[in-house]
Amino acid sequence: MSTATKTADQIGLERLVFFTDAVIAIAITLLVLEIKIPPGRLSEQALGEALVVQVPKMVGFALSFVVIGAFWQGHHRMFRYVTHLNSGLVVLNQFFLLFICFLPFPTGVFSEHPNLQLPFLVYGGSLAAAGLMQWNMWRYLASRKLLADHITTSTIRWIGRRTLIVPFVALAAVALSYVSLEIAGMTFGSIPIWITIVNRLARRAGVTA
Amino acid sequence: MSTATKTADQIGLERLVFFTDAVIAIAITLLVLEIKIPPGRLSEQALGEALVVQVPKMVGFALSFVVIGAFWQGHHRMFRYVTHLNSGLVVLNQFFLLFICFLPFPTGVFSEHPNLQLPFLVYGGSLAAAGLMQWNMWRYLASRKLLADHITTSTIRWIGRRTLIVPFVALAAVALSYVSLEIAGMTFGSIPIWITIVNRLARRAGVTA
Amino acid sequence: MSTATKTADQIGLERLVFFTDAVIAIAITLLVLEIKIPPGRLSEQALGEALVVQVPKMVGFALSFVVIGAFWQGHHRMFRYVTHLNSGLVVLNQFFLLFICFLPFPTGVFSEHPNLQLPFLVYGGSLAAAGLMQWNMWRYLASRKLLADHITTSTIRWIGRRTLIVPFVALAAVALSYVSLEIAGMTFGSIPIWITIVNRLARRAGVTA
Amino acid sequence: MSTATKTADQIGLERLVFFTDAVIAIAITLLVLEIKIPPGRLSEQALGEALVVQVPKMVGFALSFVVIGAFWQGHHRMFRYVTHLNSGLVVLNQFFLLFICFLPFPTGVFSEHPNLQLPFLVYGGSLAAAGLMQWNMWRYLASRKLLADHITTSTIRWIGRRTLIVPFVALAAVALSYVSLEIAGMTFGSIPIWITIVNRLARRAGVTA
Repeated sequence: MSTATKTADQIGLERLVFFTDAVIAIAITLLVLEIKIPPGRLSEQALGEALVVQVPKMVGFALSFVVIGAFWQGHHRMFRYVTHLNSGLVVLNQFFLLFICFLPFPTGVFSEHPNLQLPFLVYGGSLAAAGLMQWNMWRYLASRKLLADHITTSTIRWIGRRTLIVPFVALAAVALSYVSLEIAGMTFGSIPIWITIVNRLARRAGVTA
Repeated sequence: MSTATKTADQIGLERLVFFTDAVIAIAITLLVLEIKIPPGRLSEQALGEALVVQVPKMVGFALSFVVIGAFWQGHHRMFRYVTHLNSGLVVLNQFFLLFICFLPFPTGVFSEHPNLQLPFLVYGGSLAAAGLMQWNMWRYLASRKLLADHITTSTIRWIGRRTLIVPFVALAAVALSYVSLEIAGMTFGSIPIWITIVNRLARRAGVTA
Repeated sequence: MSTATKTADQIGLERLVFFTDAVIAIAITLLVLEIKIPPGRLSEQALGEALVVQVPKMVGFALSFVVIGAFWQGHHRMFRYVTHLNSGLVVLNQFFLLFICFLPFPTGVFSEHPNLQLPFLVYGGSLAAAGLMQWNMWRYLASRKLLADHITTSTIRWIGRRTLIVPFVALAAVALSYVSLEIAGMTFGSIPIWITIVNRLARRAGVTA
Repeated sequence: MSTATKTADQIGLERLVFFTDAVIAIAITLLVLEIKIPPGRLSEQALGEALVVQVPKMVGFALSFVVIGAFWQGHHRMFRYVTHLNSGLVVLNQFFLLFICFLPFPTGVFSEHPNLQLPFLVYGGSLAAAGLMQWNMWRYLASRKLLADHITTSTIRWIGRRTLIVPFVALAAVALSYVSLEIAGMTFGSIPIWITIVNRLARRAGVTA
């Protein structure tokens, strides 16, 4: 591959990555629009009560921020190894973004109705779909040789595993929501813990990325 | 052209491209704000019904995401060949963005009222306008010699053709909406299929971009 | 100045510019959120009437898109000459962005109430403030020697003049709004014409930027 | 460290920084959505009164714009010295962004209810949390040797001090809100003054960053 083509690839990749960053940044920030207090004059006590009512939404915001943040971190790490670009990658990335962009809606449903079972299905299903899209993109990158030569098979495997954490935990939470909504809710909250564990295991296996 | 001027052009182009990406990223993400469920306490069944009511909006969101994504991909591919910048290009790009930014409104109208004929006119007309702006920009780039020397006439022609898919299909859908709203709706849905077909034909003709 | 420091300046400038682009991109896109049709089931005719009611808002959206776009173009051209960065520049750029970010509000007021005089004051005043901030930044850049050595005094002067178009026309529109709202409204619409005229005059004077 | 790894670090850092910029740009721009006038036909006088009612929100918008702008400037200056990247930095930056993204909510509460005491606690607490996250990130950067070799201990110390201004003033304002809401409000307004003072003291101590 000539130097000129390589540069075009780098520019194309840079733009793909920045477009992705902009979309994720907006999706992650729109989440806060769900948290609202009733308009109009309120007494000190009424405002306090209105804020307490918003606490589940704040928890939902923080949880989704962490989860979308984890998607971004996954994308960030994956693309440090990507050296080539083709139209298939652009399309797969677009599908990943479709589900990321959609997330503010199920997050809103989930944090508005944490006491119902259906929101667990909607929220967990959306997270799982976004995660599977990301995993699918990683598999494509590895199989089509779009990654840097110096990446080891072990690194490819561990990055793939980390990508599967969100869909795995999300589907587990959906399943558990049929048993207990409290346990299912805590299952979502365990995502950062699992990411930390897999990162440690990867580091022990000699994978730094 | 001296190296210094070239660098200024590259910086100017980079910024034009990133500004475009930011605007498209926001337009594509705002679409999700159309999907809402009624606030307040709901029963499991009432929430289920509220979600079913939102299905047309979700379809509209996904369709518009794919279409705006196709605009972005078109821009992405075009600008991999752009090497020079002038104020005419900046103005034409701005007009393209004007119609892209406007899209969340007709998308909202269309997904709120898929049973009426007028939304097809508003939505299809807006898509066609955005596509024609993009096509016009490509023609300008080609005629003003703002493209890389190594681009072939064949590549220029195929990129132009792909740019015309969205306006062509959108106008066809508008025309068909006078016959049947169902057929017109499916016509919009065929945009990704046409893009895939044109991409394959282009590849067969030896054009990779 | 050593090469290392220069690079730090370039990275700092790049980031300042991309942050500015992101803020302008969001402000320009938020304008579309003003255009809304009433929710709920509508007849074909009622939707048509609701769309007609939105026409002034669409005009306001298009006008403000063009005006904010002109601000972006002004920033884009200015910063192609900026080679150095200091904390004063960052602060002045922030003040410029403060007024740019505020614009969706007066735009909304203006396009909601084009039949009243007060919105002309609010909208025109905001445009003038944003433009004067941009002009002030350009004067600072020129006086603090933060621009490339090769820029001519003539280019500095013409860029300054173009920056003053928006505040000048906006204040003229505010003054004329006391005479006739129609004439004042058309005055705002003349901004792109004045920019074209000044660009042509600049080109005749041998200034290409 | 080989050249290749360094480049990967630079790309990774660039992306971290642009993602941060996009998130801050959105958070800073969403603030304007709080400022609204009642919809529907209004008389000239009723609009005037509606605008006067919005003045506290405009002050809140401007104040929060300046404060979030100060966070951005702090990030901008910090990262001009960052040369290396690790996963800990990405996580700490994400926590900083979590609180930045949250700010539109407490800003809305504060500018809707400046006459109550609770909003001071909510707003001040959020600002303090964001500032402490930024300070924590700076401490991490310094202790993990992720900064450029040429940075002096004195520069590290002064940047750290400037980072503590917002949390310090915010917590002081919260404390003072128990005495007088007017004094507490003005305390928030003093943030830019303190930043200017610390910048001058730093410059006197020979620190330019």
